[in-house]
Amino acid sequence: MPRPVTLFTGQWADLPFEEMCKLASGWGYDGLEIACWGDHFDVWQAVEDEGYVKAKREVLDKYNLKVWAISNHLKGQAVCDDPIDQRHKDILPSKIWGDGDPEGVRQRAAEEMKVTARAARALGVDTVVGFTGSSIWKYVAMFPPASQAMVDAGYEDFANRWNPIIDVFDSEGVKFAFEVHPSEIAYDYWTTVRMLEAIDHRESYGLNWDPSHFVWQDLNPVDFIFDFKDRIYHVDCKDAKRRVGNGRNGRLGSHLAWGDLRRGWDFVSTGHGDVPWEDSFRALNAIGYDGPISIEWEDAGMDRLHGAPEALKIVRALQEIEPPAASFDAAFASSD
Amino acid sequence: MPRPVTLFTGQWADLPFEEMCKLASGWGYDGLEIACWGDHFDVWQAVEDEGYVKAKREVLDKYNLKVWAISNHLKGQAVCDDPIDQRHKDILPSKIWGDGDPEGVRQRAAEEMKVTARAARALGVDTVVGFTGSSIWKYVAMFPPASQAMVDAGYEDFANRWNPIIDVFDSEGVKFAFEVHPSEIAYDYWTTVRMLEAIDHRESYGLNWDPSHFVWQDLNPVDFIFDFKDRIYHVDCKDAKRRVGNGRNGRLGSHLAWGDLRRGWDFVSTGHGDVPWEDSFRALNAIGYDGPISIEWEDAGMDRLHGAPEALKIVRALQEIEPPAASFDAAFASSD
Amino acid sequence: MPRPVTLFTGQWADLPFEEMCKLASGWGYDGLEIACWGDHFDVWQAVEDEGYVKAKREVLDKYNLKVWAISNHLKGQAVCDDPIDQRHKDILPSKIWGDGDPEGVRQRAAEEMKVTARAARALGVDTVVGFTGSSIWKYVAMFPPASQAMVDAGYEDFANRWNPIIDVFDSEGVKFAFEVHPSEIAYDYWTTVRMLEAIDHRESYGLNWDPSHFVWQDLNPVDFIFDFKDRIYHVDCKDAKRRVGNGRNGRLGSHLAWGDLRRGWDFVSTGHGDVPWEDSFRALNAIGYDGPISIEWEDAGMDRLHGAPEALKIVRALQEIEPPAASFDAAFASSD
Amino acid sequence: MPRPVTLFTGQWADLPFEEMCKLASGWGYDGLEIACWGDHFDVWQAVEDEGYVKAKREVLDKYNLKVWAISNHLKGQAVCDDPIDQRHKDILPSKIWGDGDPEGVRQRAAEEMKVTARAARALGVDTVVGFTGSSIWKYVAMFPPASQAMVDAGYEDFANRWNPIIDVFDSEGVKFAFEVHPSEIAYDYWTTVRMLEAIDHRESYGLNWDPSHFVWQDLNPVDFIFDFKDRIYHVDCKDAKRRVGNGRNGRLGSHLAWGDLRRGWDFVSTGHGDVPWEDSFRALNAIGYDGPISIEWEDAGMDRLHGAPEALKIVRALQEIEPPAASFDAAFASSD
Amino acid sequence: MPRPVTLFTGQWADLPFEEMCKLASGWGYDGLEIACWGDHFDVWQAVEDEGYVKAKREVLDKYNLKVWAISNHLKGQAVCDDPIDQRHKDILPSKIWGDGDPEGVRQRAAEEMKVTARAARALGVDTVVGFTGSSIWKYVAMFPPASQAMVDAGYEDFANRWNPIIDVFDSEGVKFAFEVHPSEIAYDYWTTVRMLEAIDHRESYGLNWDPSHFVWQDLNPVDFIFDFKDRIYHVDCKDAKRRVGNGRNGRLGSHLAWGDLRRGWDFVSTGHGDVPWEDSFRALNAIGYDGPISIEWEDAGMDRLHGAPEALKIVRALQEIEPPAASFDAAFASSD
Amino acid sequence: MPRPVTLFTGQWADLPFEEMCKLASGWGYDGLEIACWGDHFDVWQAVEDEGYVKAKREVLDKYNLKVWAISNHLKGQAVCDDPIDQRHKDILPSKIWGDGDPEGVRQRAAEEMKVTARAARALGVDTVVGFTGSSIWKYVAMFPPASQAMVDAGYEDFANRWNPIIDVFDSEGVKFAFEVHPSEIAYDYWTTVRMLEAIDHRESYGLNWDPSHFVWQDLNPVDFIFDFKDRIYHVDCKDAKRRVGNGRNGRLGSHLAWGDLRRGWDFVSTGHGDVPWEDSFRALNAIGYDGPISIEWEDAGMDRLHGAPEALKIVRALQEIEPPAASFDAAFASSD
Repeated sequence: MPRPVTLFTGQWADLPFEEMCKLASGWGYDGLEIACWGDHFDVWQAVEDEGYVKAKREVLDKYNLKVWAISNHLKGQAVCDDPIDQRHKDILPSKIWGDGDPEGVRQRAAEEMKVTARAARALGVDTVVGFTGSSIWKYVAMFPPASQAMVDAGYEDFANRWNPIIDVFDSEGVKFAFEVHPSEIAYDYWTTVRMLEAIDHRESYGLNWDPSHFVWQDLNPVDFIFDFKDRIYHVDCKDAKRRVGNGRNGRLGSHLAWGDLRRGWDFVSTGHGDVPWEDSFRALNAIGYDGPISIEWEDAGMDRLHGAPEALKIVRALQEIEPPAASFDAAFASSD
Repeated sequence: MPRPVTLFTGQWADLPFEEMCKLASGWGYDGLEIACWGDHFDVWQAVEDEGYVKAKREVLDKYNLKVWAISNHLKGQAVCDDPIDQRHKDILPSKIWGDGDPEGVRQRAAEEMKVTARAARALGVDTVVGFTGSSIWKYVAMFPPASQAMVDAGYEDFANRWNPIIDVFDSEGVKFAFEVHPSEIAYDYWTTVRMLEAIDHRESYGLNWDPSHFVWQDLNPVDFIFDFKDRIYHVDCKDAKRRVGNGRNGRLGSHLAWGDLRRGWDFVSTGHGDVPWEDSFRALNAIGYDGPISIEWEDAGMDRLHGAPEALKIVRALQEIEPPAASFDAAFASSD
Repeated sequence: MPRPVTLFTGQWADLPFEEMCKLASGWGYDGLEIACWGDHFDVWQAVEDEGYVKAKREVLDKYNLKVWAISNHLKGQAVCDDPIDQRHKDILPSKIWGDGDPEGVRQRAAEEMKVTARAARALGVDTVVGFTGSSIWKYVAMFPPASQAMVDAGYEDFANRWNPIIDVFDSEGVKFAFEVHPSEIAYDYWTTVRMLEAIDHRESYGLNWDPSHFVWQDLNPVDFIFDFKDRIYHVDCKDAKRRVGNGRNGRLGSHLAWGDLRRGWDFVSTGHGDVPWEDSFRALNAIGYDGPISIEWEDAGMDRLHGAPEALKIVRALQEIEPPAASFDAAFASSD
Repeated sequence: MPRPVTLFTGQWADLPFEEMCKLASGWGYDGLEIACWGDHFDVWQAVEDEGYVKAKREVLDKYNLKVWAISNHLKGQAVCDDPIDQRHKDILPSKIWGDGDPEGVRQRAAEEMKVTARAARALGVDTVVGFTGSSIWKYVAMFPPASQAMVDAGYEDFANRWNPIIDVFDSEGVKFAFEVHPSEIAYDYWTTVRMLEAIDHRESYGLNWDPSHFVWQDLNPVDFIFDFKDRIYHVDCKDAKRRVGNGRNGRLGSHLAWGDLRRGWDFVSTGHGDVPWEDSFRALNAIGYDGPISIEWEDAGMDRLHGAPEALKIVRALQEIEPPAASFDAAFASSD
Repeated sequence: MPRPVTLFTGQWADLPFEEMCKLASGWGYDGLEIACWGDHFDVWQAVEDEGYVKAKREVLDKYNLKVWAISNHLKGQAVCDDPIDQRHKDILPSKIWGDGDPEGVRQRAAEEMKVTARAARALGVDTVVGFTGSSIWKYVAMFPPASQAMVDAGYEDFANRWNPIIDVFDSEGVKFAFEVHPSEIAYDYWTTVRMLEAIDHRESYGLNWDPSHFVWQDLNPVDFIFDFKDRIYHVDCKDAKRRVGNGRNGRLGSHLAWGDLRRGWDFVSTGHGDVPWEDSFRALNAIGYDGPISIEWEDAGMDRLHGAPEALKIVRALQEIEPPAASFDAAFASSD
Repeated sequence: MPRPVTLFTGQWADLPFEEMCKLASGWGYDGLEIACWGDHFDVWQAVEDEGYVKAKREVLDKYNLKVWAISNHLKGQAVCDDPIDQRHKDILPSKIWGDGDPEGVRQRAAEEMKVTARAARALGVDTVVGFTGSSIWKYVAMFPPASQAMVDAGYEDFANRWNPIIDVFDSEGVKFAFEVHPSEIAYDYWTTVRMLEAIDHRESYGLNWDPSHFVWQDLNPVDFIFDFKDRIYHVDCKDAKRRVGNGRNGRLGSHLAWGDLRRGWDFVSTGHGDVPWEDSFRALNAIGYDGPISIEWEDAGMDRLHGAPEALKIVRALQEIEPPAASFDAAFASSD
């Protein structure tokens, strides 16, 4: 079987899991990258209640869907974040938020990430996709001045909080695929290099390649695949479009809402943006990536019911680009 | 007298004020944009002690320097900021930091900004340059999700905290020239539009045109002068260089220190970066700006003792571009 | 009903109206933007003869076509133009050309534009698309020197000639949608600003957004929609392709015929050129434009019978991009 | 009949001729550009054995395929090349390689090119596509220093070796369509100018327009068609993609294998690269080229069985762009 | 003597000739390109009154200035122009304007151009720089539709009116150096090709290379030198700057006054714009151009008294780039 | 002492050594990078005759010049090259060329490179700059097809021939600084990676950073410094200018002579081309490079007697950019 195409359910968690399954199956997806929020997947129940996992599996089977990865961005976000504020309260379950004391929130979130590794194992899945949060993201503008010591402390904080989590991933035989993203400990090329150094390149900790944030930061998604080829553990297809160039729209988005065309960049449905998809897929072929291709669908200017099946069609076309068995200049060989 | 050229003392506050004056005068500057930190200018003393201002004036006179503006970025920063943390403690005097309780810090900082208006008046200066801080800068990445209501609240918080300060500027006949800058309530074109709306375009509140942060956000510094032509109250010449394009260096700077060439952009000495200086000066001519041209010198890869006089030379050359009295095609007129 | 897609009949006026209807209907168009020349629509008959309009309506009904706008570019052109010459004679009916005395031609053309407003009303249509001509277009190269007084006089001439016409539009409740275009009083961004000022932003006078001429002048079609969002009264989809870059093809077209690839730009069938169609349609969504999308088909290198149905297909696909009901990050909300 | 679309068999010569015919026919090609290697076409047999040609024709007829050109790149390459080495041995039949003595190889190769003209005539074909080799290609880097005299000698060597070959083409009424290509006597614009001068613009010697190598050398494929419009005797559609821009991938390909994404450019299936296909086809229309459009399929990252039919589909769509009979502004003419 | 540097007096004709000489000499110019308007040079007097020329020469000698060319743009403009209007009246002497009847104006202007050739001879000068005007410039936008027959007629009108003038240039042994420029019969590359064809490439009629208008039309000034290398009879250094890119400023200048930064391009002092001066001078070296380098100074944002000496300094520096006698790799030759 | 600036004598070897010294000294150079050809430096004499070195030193001392490196490009070229032909004969002394048998030439050249290490030691110099030649450069176009095995063999040949040479460098304590260059075993980024792997990153073998060939291959000279920071052993300042973009000039130079502006790129005097010199010098500062900055002067369009002193002036200005002792934001620290 060639690489399967899945739909990430994070942006659909307002829908009941079964409805989500029905939609994805109807559009022709091979499976789901299941979000650990909404009613889609509760990692605590998954490790505590065998029946829970079995029931999920039955729904998936009913719709002929498979699963290769689960995702828990929202709880991972809280592990390192500082400050912890209303934004976190809005996306965390009360079990993690508790009384909202920041350090307590962080520790409960870390605990859930360990549970997530065990839940993945329980579901028979090898990969967890997610975020880490960051205690130093807030220094990104470097003003008021943040010393390199403060920055170093941020990476150390990350290592201290995540190494114990990775220990659990190790013992469960599950891999964590971190999504390089603003607000996280790594959001570009050099911070990814630094992040991997901070945890000594532990093998259980790799990357979820999602090119959408590379585009507006002027990073090269294709080179990223090559340069981190031994750490690409999962692929999310999310697209973004730059809308700078008129001298008024800026790279930082101007605190404008998604979909506002005055933003200097925005998420768009896969294939509608600036990601060099074809070369990216050729690079995935080149490094031998054979895991799932997951569509993380976000486009504030398009109806998701229109966009999700369209994105699948686009990705299926990209998947048809497969390397041949033999070199083409073999045909020039003289053999008389 | 054509527009004077001044040196902003903020990056030199480690030097005693008189030494700073001696240097600037020796290089040929017309005056200073005096920073309200270090021993350069203490706004509290200025309003409480007539002799303090007189003594400052004597030093300036001794070195044949004038002053058209004072700057208080560091205290302005604390007015709206959230969180208030170690970075603020590092740059605030104990009088403002106090016990470090965030709201107390903000209010004491606001009080100092009022005092700054009075101190400017006492010094005989019409303009205060500075920052505002921002309670919503931290939402810039828009993840965890920040609703437009949260964003709106940030602009409202800004208006609530700054309107009373502007009242004092109004009554003193002094203008505040806000520097558009990451970490502030406005950092690009559309946030500047929104900021000015938030305070109903009060006339005492305008802009310090500093193009360095426009360059890496892909904003057009020349158009900015035109579009906000009635609000350009001060000019800071600081330059920046984009170093993106290799697919690895990113627009956000990667938390790398100033001067690290892997940053996607960096400050450089005036004339060494990507600011379109000539057209900017032509635009300043076009809108009739006749205030000071102040050099805010920052370049982590160059010695400031080399850079400051070089920047002056570059700006003097730009100042030589002056519009003529008559249209050139007048010479084609037939007059026989 | 979503926005209808119409075909502008101007480039098909060599065909009898009914044949045009048959073709457009067969290709699946929703309606026509009817040109007031050829036998397609005679505004004088329309206001003088009730049966004329009724007969037109019957043909449209027979082919299940609707009409939201009529166009009278060729007569509008003559209202302000100077000189009036052979080119005008070639495109004007004898009723307007008369003896060819320039001022007489202008006045008769102005009269026809008033009649056009009444004819639109008679047909039950709210919008007239068209040109204005210009007495100063000939000064575009600014050599021999044209003073600003001469330029000012041109805008004044425009206002003087068009205000009485707009009065009739006002009284008929019909809007004029001016097409920004070389040879007209406004052909780019700043001339559009000036034109609207010249008539005090009268509400009956707005714009027909046609991006084809923006492309080669380096104007941004998407920003144009935003910046004039309250004056976009009609949309024409015409595309253009820049062919500069080899150092020999120039922006002005070299007096070469349409379709000659040495021209620095040329019209091409919608979707074959440099217009950023997708973002343009997103912008139309953003400003809430709900009028017709009309295809003005011009491509000297393609057969129109091939191009017109292809263009419809491309526009239908663009129309499928519709904003969703809810924000995508709603799905992240915690609700336990 | 509009221009036919053929498949060049050079990259398929590992397959038996009939299998190749079956594939091409099944995909819908109109004919073949037959390579004179493998078992596809043996020029010596063609001129010596009437039955050989007849048999080939029968296979073609069986699959409803036509032929307008044959190609003999591999032997043409050896005519001027210096050094002659293992690479040539690998692609030449023993009849030409013989004992491998360079001058002998060159002369036997030249002899085969004459035979190829006669074979084309025997097959009823007017065009032979191919290479020339070059004795000075090895000087391309100009270090160790190569004097202009050495360069001149290379063009003279070319003329001396090819004029006798062209004599045979003349007498057979067949044209040679040289493919501009690195390793050949002409590989870009100015070397093509020089090459044609070297043989005094003999009419039997023209060009096979193959844009793939133009793309990475920054040559303009569309202008090339215009500037050499009287010498475009054949068209090969091969595409290429530039992959420079990250500062590490170079224009020269780094001796990396085809398909390695670190190469600064690579061949890709038609329509997947940087060739401006639409304008190229418009240019072919403009110069009245009415010969075959041949797909030379090379893409080391794609399976040829997937790519060849896809390329045909893309080219068929390009072929639908045909100039109209009449000028579109005819419809504006007044005829009352 | 290397190529001399002259100052074109056209934009200084409001100053008395002697004052102009004094200025130019004081700045260090080698000579003048004298405009045939103001009191600088009257061609009628020059041919009728020997003393007039002698007096001019004395003034030149007094200031140690030489002259290699005279210019008569303003009268040349009227030879072909249509319409003839107020703009012409403003720049023509009454002797040429007369009663303003267009055809009379054209014929008197043509007569003056013949006289100009004779005046050049009388002054001992081999070159006249100037314009032609154009009866078809007004068709540049191609709307209202202008047929190719109309365009052809324009080139024919040009040939008919200028051939008799060129006859006089021939007989006087003087060359006309036409300045490629909007409003003229040729304003870009392809119109220059067409113009030269229209007069059968007569040798007395060549080009004044002035790159300022090439810049904003996207023409390559360096290639222009090569491609018309046998017709470069004079060089004018005028610079221009593109100011497009923000999506609002357009290539056509928006009828805005010179110096308005909203124009999409503008003239600027030599070295302040987008002309590739260094490569242009290398190209002039390459074709062996050894005539004068004349500075035509126009910059609505700079004082000409500042600009003219600055431009001279810049051009002198460019002149220092001179080809060496021997090839640099000669030094690698082994000679033991 | 800051980094010294030297002049490479390779392009001046037609001059006697003392004359060269006199010129360089007169222009203000600190020293020379002495070429081992002409009469500048004979490595055989240097190791055999103590007086030879002493005499050279006396000449240098007389002109107050120092030496930090010697260069032997021409002999190094012959070590791996294949074919060995007239071009080599032209630049090799008869001692190395001998009977011209290729393998003999290669071995004698290799012997000279060993002697060069000993000569450097004798002269008291730590660095030898040079070339390697390449047996596979001729495969750069990859047609006729060159297998990866052939390519691999080329790197192996390089290692086999150079390892014994490097052994001598090791034992002499001298470093070889290879210049990345077309015609050599490494000519771009990825071939440099491969070359260093081929010899197991031996420490005595590093790089001479010469950015001129990076520019036209689209390689990033600044990143190159970072990525190979532990192997930058010498710096040569040679500049190059891209002249592509018109669609006719190609990246490969068209076999045209140096200085012909139709070449797609050419060498130009330092500071006249596309090398990002300022950022390159900032990068050299960043990696702590403290060796000589050598000007390798080549510009076929400029006189070397003009260019060499001008280049020195430009490099001296670049050298003035030196990093400061302290971080600039130290001045913001609060210290009350």
